[in-house]
Amino acid sequence: MTSRPTCTRSVVLARRPDGNPVPEDFSLIEEALPALNDGELLLVNEFVSLDAGFRNWMDEDSGDAVLPAMALGAPVMGLVLGTVLESRHRDFEPGTRLMARLAWQEHTVTDATDFLIRLPEPLEADAEHYLGILGDTGLSAFFGLRDIGRPKDGETVLVSAAAGAVGSIAGQLARIMGARAVGISSGPEKLERLKRDLGYDAVIDRRKPLPDQLASACPEGVDVYFDNVGGPMLETVIDHLAEGARVVLCGAVSTYGQAAEGPKNLFQLVTRQAAMSGFLTHTRAEEYPEARAELARWLKEGKLVAPEHRLQGIEQVAQAFCDLFAGRNFGKTLVEL
Amino acid sequence: MTSRPTCTRSVVLARRPDGNPVPEDFSLIEEALPALNDGELLLVNEFVSLDAGFRNWMDEDSGDAVLPAMALGAPVMGLVLGTVLESRHRDFEPGTRLMARLAWQEHTVTDATDFLIRLPEPLEADAEHYLGILGDTGLSAFFGLRDIGRPKDGETVLVSAAAGAVGSIAGQLARIMGARAVGISSGPEKLERLKRDLGYDAVIDRRKPLPDQLASACPEGVDVYFDNVGGPMLETVIDHLAEGARVVLCGAVSTYGQAAEGPKNLFQLVTRQAAMSGFLTHTRAEEYPEARAELARWLKEGKLVAPEHRLQGIEQVAQAFCDLFAGRNFGKTLVEL
Repeated sequence: MTSRPTCTRSVVLARRPDGNPVPEDFSLIEEALPALNDGELLLVNEFVSLDAGFRNWMDEDSGDAVLPAMALGAPVMGLVLGTVLESRHRDFEPGTRLMARLAWQEHTVTDATDFLIRLPEPLEADAEHYLGILGDTGLSAFFGLRDIGRPKDGETVLVSAAAGAVGSIAGQLARIMGARAVGISSGPEKLERLKRDLGYDAVIDRRKPLPDQLASACPEGVDVYFDNVGGPMLETVIDHLAEGARVVLCGAVSTYGQAAEGPKNLFQLVTRQAAMSGFLTHTRAEEYPEARAELARWLKEGKLVAPEHRLQGIEQVAQAFCDLFAGRNFGKTLVEL
Repeated sequence: MTSRPTCTRSVVLARRPDGNPVPEDFSLIEEALPALNDGELLLVNEFVSLDAGFRNWMDEDSGDAVLPAMALGAPVMGLVLGTVLESRHRDFEPGTRLMARLAWQEHTVTDATDFLIRLPEPLEADAEHYLGILGDTGLSAFFGLRDIGRPKDGETVLVSAAAGAVGSIAGQLARIMGARAVGISSGPEKLERLKRDLGYDAVIDRRKPLPDQLASACPEGVDVYFDNVGGPMLETVIDHLAEGARVVLCGAVSTYGQAAEGPKNLFQLVTRQAAMSGFLTHTRAEEYPEARAELARWLKEGKLVAPEHRLQGIEQVAQAFCDLFAGRNFGKTLVEL
């Protein structure tokens, strides 16, 4: 039994990022942990998941139906996995493991009106996988490919941000579904790992001119484009779509993709009879258990691997978040507290 | 029996249009009609169909898989309905009625390697309807709505260029399928006719600010957007899509829609879980007879009307084509020769 801590540390928003976030946009503070009121519980947090989408709410006036804009000086919101240490809430026993949209903190006091998700018992895999391959990112890859992309045997599935949390799973799922997987990423080391660790059939370096690489890696065109980035790359890929192609606009990461320019070539969707569809994962909650069981089975059988960019300690959380935007991660980015 | 003419008149491309075509881009010439060689046939043309899409091939170097770029001084390509007057081709008897992608001419000599379509016998409706409501434009409206838009009872279908050849049918079909139809067009007279003649439930003037009009005409959002124009209007409509909306990029007219700018708000397809799909009509030839029979039945029953902008004589063909771009037409634009 862990003894009750008296203080906790949090990462707060020190200033609003200008474009990609840098570590100086955040600072670490220490505060006393209050006693619980009726209906509250205290979590000791084990993992913080870093997701680029949360960048969206760091701008002033960025609040929307999902989250309010983050306040300067307040703990930064993210996805956290923790265990109930103390409870004055009748629905939660100490020892219960929960995942929630909470702040980047070592401990959390909550009245349980947050969006709390209980981890299943028994766990289907290591707990931290519920923040990644068995969580939003894995489920986004799964629903996006199975329901929107629907690759057929031998078709070519192109994945952007292929080494990212979603992309690293999407490419593997494409191969499990019988398709060829082609991944776009950058740098020789990550490109090599896409092939070696994740089984991508071909890779494309986003820092080199794309059209020739696309023509060579996808000689019969792109049947499914799993788009994690939008922007000018989407426009380029549209020119390489095969007849009847499906473009999956991924819900996990596209909410911050408010592009400066849109693709000028949407008429190509007509001549190629192609479809472009957006989707969200959290509206499919009733399908989670079945999808998670399938992913956990593939993980156990070794058909899927869950690459991680894992850092240690609350001091590293801001750095881990910034790493996402610098493309330093390979797979899911996590901090173990 | 018409006696064999010795001369025929054609409309030729006098210069390449700069933006929207004007009558001075075309001129009328008269030429002798040659005697037929073996394998050729002579058509006397009854109707020329004017379709904005053909503007696409009037630019230099605009040739593609569908058509080569039109040559200066050569007859302008279009869609023509004619009757075989004389034949030295074993597959075609005098009296056969044909529709084909041919030039704007009073008579055509062809070796039948052109894309010739025999009109069914007996006709399901007046012959000229095979250039419109029972032809590419009607079938585009039909396939686009039935297969891509798939409106459900009570949903809102928004149609741009609602008074155009495709839009005038799409709005009526939306209502036959049980949806509310909202049409975008311009000018009080056309807007009034959309409601009075075509049964549109609400109309929007494209020359006035769109967002307020969209919010008022589609208070629960747009479930299906039948897009005949692309461009900035598409971007505006994306902001008004309902959850799960379908955007139909219409194949009949979008091939010339090479936009200067693309929609910047494609991320809205994610948050609204919406899909945008392009399609072509001519790849569905095996479905034509059934689709045409359905449209002909509705036409006969008075559930569908086929509005026409009809001019008379080869001298009016260029004007009729230019009328399309000036928005002067209501419904299908035809010239009766």
